[in-house]
Amino acid sequence: MTRQRLYAPGPVPVPPEVLAALAQPVVHHRSPAFRDLMQRVRDRLATVFEVPGDDVVVVTGSGTAAFEAALLASVGPGEEVLCLRSGRFGEKWADMSRRFGLNVTELAADYGTEYDQPALRSALQNAPGVAAVIVVHSETSTGMLHDVAAVARTVRETAPRALVIVDAVSSLAAAELRPRAWDLDVVVSGSQKGVMVPPGLGFAWLSERAWHRVGPRAPTYYLDLRRERDRQRDGQTGSTPATSLIAALDVSLGMILTEGLGERWQRKERLNAALLAAGEAAGLRRFAQRPSPATAALATPDGVDASALVAALRDAGVYIGGGQGDLKERIIRPSLLGYADEHDLMTLAAALESAAAEVGLGTRPGAAAAAAAESWVGSSPG
Amino acid sequence: MTRQRLYAPGPVPVPPEVLAALAQPVVHHRSPAFRDLMQRVRDRLATVFEVPGDDVVVVTGSGTAAFEAALLASVGPGEEVLCLRSGRFGEKWADMSRRFGLNVTELAADYGTEYDQPALRSALQNAPGVAAVIVVHSETSTGMLHDVAAVARTVRETAPRALVIVDAVSSLAAAELRPRAWDLDVVVSGSQKGVMVPPGLGFAWLSERAWHRVGPRAPTYYLDLRRERDRQRDGQTGSTPATSLIAALDVSLGMILTEGLGERWQRKERLNAALLAAGEAAGLRRFAQRPSPATAALATPDGVDASALVAALRDAGVYIGGGQGDLKERIIRPSLLGYADEHDLMTLAAALESAAAEVGLGTRPGAAAAAAAESWVGSSPG
Repeated sequence: MTRQRLYAPGPVPVPPEVLAALAQPVVHHRSPAFRDLMQRVRDRLATVFEVPGDDVVVVTGSGTAAFEAALLASVGPGEEVLCLRSGRFGEKWADMSRRFGLNVTELAADYGTEYDQPALRSALQNAPGVAAVIVVHSETSTGMLHDVAAVARTVRETAPRALVIVDAVSSLAAAELRPRAWDLDVVVSGSQKGVMVPPGLGFAWLSERAWHRVGPRAPTYYLDLRRERDRQRDGQTGSTPATSLIAALDVSLGMILTEGLGERWQRKERLNAALLAAGEAAGLRRFAQRPSPATAALATPDGVDASALVAALRDAGVYIGGGQGDLKERIIRPSLLGYADEHDLMTLAAALESAAAEVGLGTRPGAAAAAAAESWVGSSPG
Repeated sequence: MTRQRLYAPGPVPVPPEVLAALAQPVVHHRSPAFRDLMQRVRDRLATVFEVPGDDVVVVTGSGTAAFEAALLASVGPGEEVLCLRSGRFGEKWADMSRRFGLNVTELAADYGTEYDQPALRSALQNAPGVAAVIVVHSETSTGMLHDVAAVARTVRETAPRALVIVDAVSSLAAAELRPRAWDLDVVVSGSQKGVMVPPGLGFAWLSERAWHRVGPRAPTYYLDLRRERDRQRDGQTGSTPATSLIAALDVSLGMILTEGLGERWQRKERLNAALLAAGEAAGLRRFAQRPSPATAALATPDGVDASALVAALRDAGVYIGGGQGDLKERIIRPSLLGYADEHDLMTLAAALESAAAEVGLGTRPGAAAAAAAESWVGSSPG
């Protein structure tokens, strides 16, 4: 029997307490017991989103479903959106925007690099009627944590009426994210990343400014965010929700809040930095300018296919993320985003080193594990 | 501690084997292990839909999500649809159709009664360009099993090009349903009813005729059924699916197929008939002309509020469905649709009788249990 260890940037491994919650008997979604659960989840989710007291709407569906719901709620056909694009998810939201008849302008940055602020400013000046700017916080495909706060500042200065729509699918509960302080308008996430629940739930928060843009009738029934918000304020849902996943989410959010959100952001960043150090010691190169704690994107040297490294790890029972699209043979994406701590870091560092040696990357045995340990201990906040 | 017994027509109680599957470690949705699982689920689902070899597309979302996906795939804005309406779900699909800019005509039947075939024929004759007819198979709000085969025959005779779109949310795996033999075009269902999985998955099957209507670009991204079908043929999914629920579905479908689909239809019908007999013995009146095995809709006598009966049962730890909308004070909807057998029947019959006595319905003690047992034994196929 092969035990498979999951170290991909989502879906992530889930705590046993969360798995146990999934296995509880089904509760009817119109029962008082579910209403209590839903109210608690709403409170906890708003805290993890750093918007206590606000509505974070839960959608049964993937993060894509929640993003579609939020986009349809806040921007209408023919309106102009500026899509910041530097990886697979940025490209996806631009595609989706086109599908819905939005007038799409794009601003690209090389994979793994930051958007150029002067270029953003002039793109906004050239589009005075722009209704929204779409930006990915943690671009899971490149391992880059984009500076959403800086993007939002530039938008406020240059095109004050434009909404700032943020894909925080892999940054929520993993990287600093402050929707109010940064003056964001839409923040979307999902269950299978930093919040450590199996896939099947998406989340959307909207600012007051964004809710004011929501028309009375969304061009969708199932993904009508206003209808869901109004029902969820009463502990109900518009459509039958994935009650088991919501029960699991309650447990997981409780664990995250017990650790403390700031402590968690810091710990995930330290784990990821140590994983990057291990990768460098194993002969790889860090790929993203400003690494997201969601994944340690590591590039292979020229001539070494990244997919061979992914396959070697898989043969050893370790499942990491590979490169996507054009990056398939260039990077690997191991991750400690989920239910993972410094012991997983050591497991993964050693496995990474062995696999790297298998594909011909010369390393000193033990170098990756040593680099990981040194980084982890050296970054201790105490 | 109060143990709560769930006897509502969905969400239903789930077998412990299915709950245990939910608690298994998360599997990555791009891994070979998930691909194998998805292929097996696809095969089993097609068998339970009575369309072996066809695509039944799995949607992460509620039955409503799957219905929206199927409607958007098969009918376009401005096209005419005839909505058969005899309860809450029929009304819901008419509302949804209007939301999407379809030209809606309605044919109503009194709650709990069958559609008038001559009226259907003349409605179709008056709408020669009608693109689709929408009909609910098991109208969960009234407990009525509509004769979808008869509706489809009339449609084929009178408006041969019209698609027959069927809501089979609470009939799948509970009542006879033969999409091919009945010449249906779209059949939609969900996970939390007859297939005994927690809520969070919807299913959609389309006929060849219906797939030919699907345009190249759906007006939705997340609910794009053709994109999902094409990915699912490879054991993949377009968006991240609720992998835990799919693992649970695999177990549940295996149990259903082990029992045998025909055997299960018969057993669920017998259980429901016995529950209706118990209700009559407890002083209630059967509500639906042709009862759906999904729920025993039972009307209270004039002067007795149905909600009082629901509350009395709830106080005894038994959670049944109440009446919805205009039927709130007129009917109750206990159900043995889920993981339930003849022992649950006896539990529920006795609880129903006690609660009926509490709200002043005169019964002979033991009459409901006796009626249930007599019906169950008397209907034995052996």
